[in-house]
Amino acid sequence: MTQQFEHFKPVALDHASRLVNHGPTVLVTSAHAGRRNIMAAAWSMPVEFTPPRIAIVIDKHTFSRELIAASGVLAVCIPGAAAADLTYAVGTSSGREGDKFARFGIETWPGALTGVPLVASGCVAWLECRLIPERHTEEAYDTCFAEVVAAAADERVFSNGHWSFREDNADLHTLHHLGAGNFARASAMIKAKPLP
Amino acid sequence: MTQQFEHFKPVALDHASRLVNHGPTVLVTSAHAGRRNIMAAAWSMPVEFTPPRIAIVIDKHTFSRELIAASGVLAVCIPGAAAADLTYAVGTSSGREGDKFARFGIETWPGALTGVPLVASGCVAWLECRLIPERHTEEAYDTCFAEVVAAAADERVFSNGHWSFREDNADLHTLHHLGAGNFARASAMIKAKPLP
Repeated sequence: MTQQFEHFKPVALDHASRLVNHGPTVLVTSAHAGRRNIMAAAWSMPVEFTPPRIAIVIDKHTFSRELIAASGVLAVCIPGAAAADLTYAVGTSSGREGDKFARFGIETWPGALTGVPLVASGCVAWLECRLIPERHTEEAYDTCFAEVVAAAADERVFSNGHWSFREDNADLHTLHHLGAGNFARASAMIKAKPLP
Repeated sequence: MTQQFEHFKPVALDHASRLVNHGPTVLVTSAHAGRRNIMAAAWSMPVEFTPPRIAIVIDKHTFSRELIAASGVLAVCIPGAAAADLTYAVGTSSGREGDKFARFGIETWPGALTGVPLVASGCVAWLECRLIPERHTEEAYDTCFAEVVAAAADERVFSNGHWSFREDNADLHTLHHLGAGNFARASAMIKAKPLP
């Protein structure tokens, strides 16, 4: 499960939305005033390439929402297939019951721009984000908007602005939650051919 | 490419959000006053299970947005891997230049509740939706909210509320757009194991 950041390279901001373009399940990390949390989120999407902006559903009753509302920042970390168990574990437990990083042995690195913990264990990319306060959608749909201020990815699976899912990097393929701890892996790339 | 709806079964409304839970690229269809359109959208997500609600990014300058704003309804059709070329083709052309259904030979079925064309060609699921008007997010983020009012899926790949991506149904696996006509197929299912 352990993986440090030696393979990570910065991702240009105008390529950052591509990291979540294909709908991976992500880990949301947050921190405020000495407390921190990590949760899983299947529901996120880009809403803009430039500036890179995303929407993400974070239930208003969660500890993560409390920390993000207080700090105004969050990180979106993208787990690789090797982190499936970890992703499900942090998605089915609450940080109010105790620090999940310690409980599950999750290694982190502080985000340079936000201070939010970035997940090293099994992750293949991360995006540091600033919340764009949108009270109505946060309340009505638990939908939070955020702008990406920094991003990086493991160059073995994302480089020059493109994902490359191959047989030799299966552990780095992104996870896509189907429900109840079942994930599909994004793999088997297809190149569309032009139609007449 | 042709595929009629003989394998389609209704999906219970409280399972409808699972159809898009894992981030597939979708086809958005719309119709109003004798005009119709189809476009591809990589950016969508559920925002609620019950009632089933989704958010989807549809550029305010598109013909689709014009039709959806006028009719208040849309359909989200989920292409299988066999429809990769079609998905890219409708995602890189405009319905203002001519009817894309005719141009690309796309077979459709009228949605029972909305009248919106549902795509038969190569699709594995569809959701009929009613727009929930949200002027601010539509304007600021091109993000439209909608409630699912009916859904169905190909029982060879989705049944009892669950996707099942297997080697024997690869043409029915969902597509996840990576950019520039490159898609990953959701495949290689992983079952998470509980952590201590």
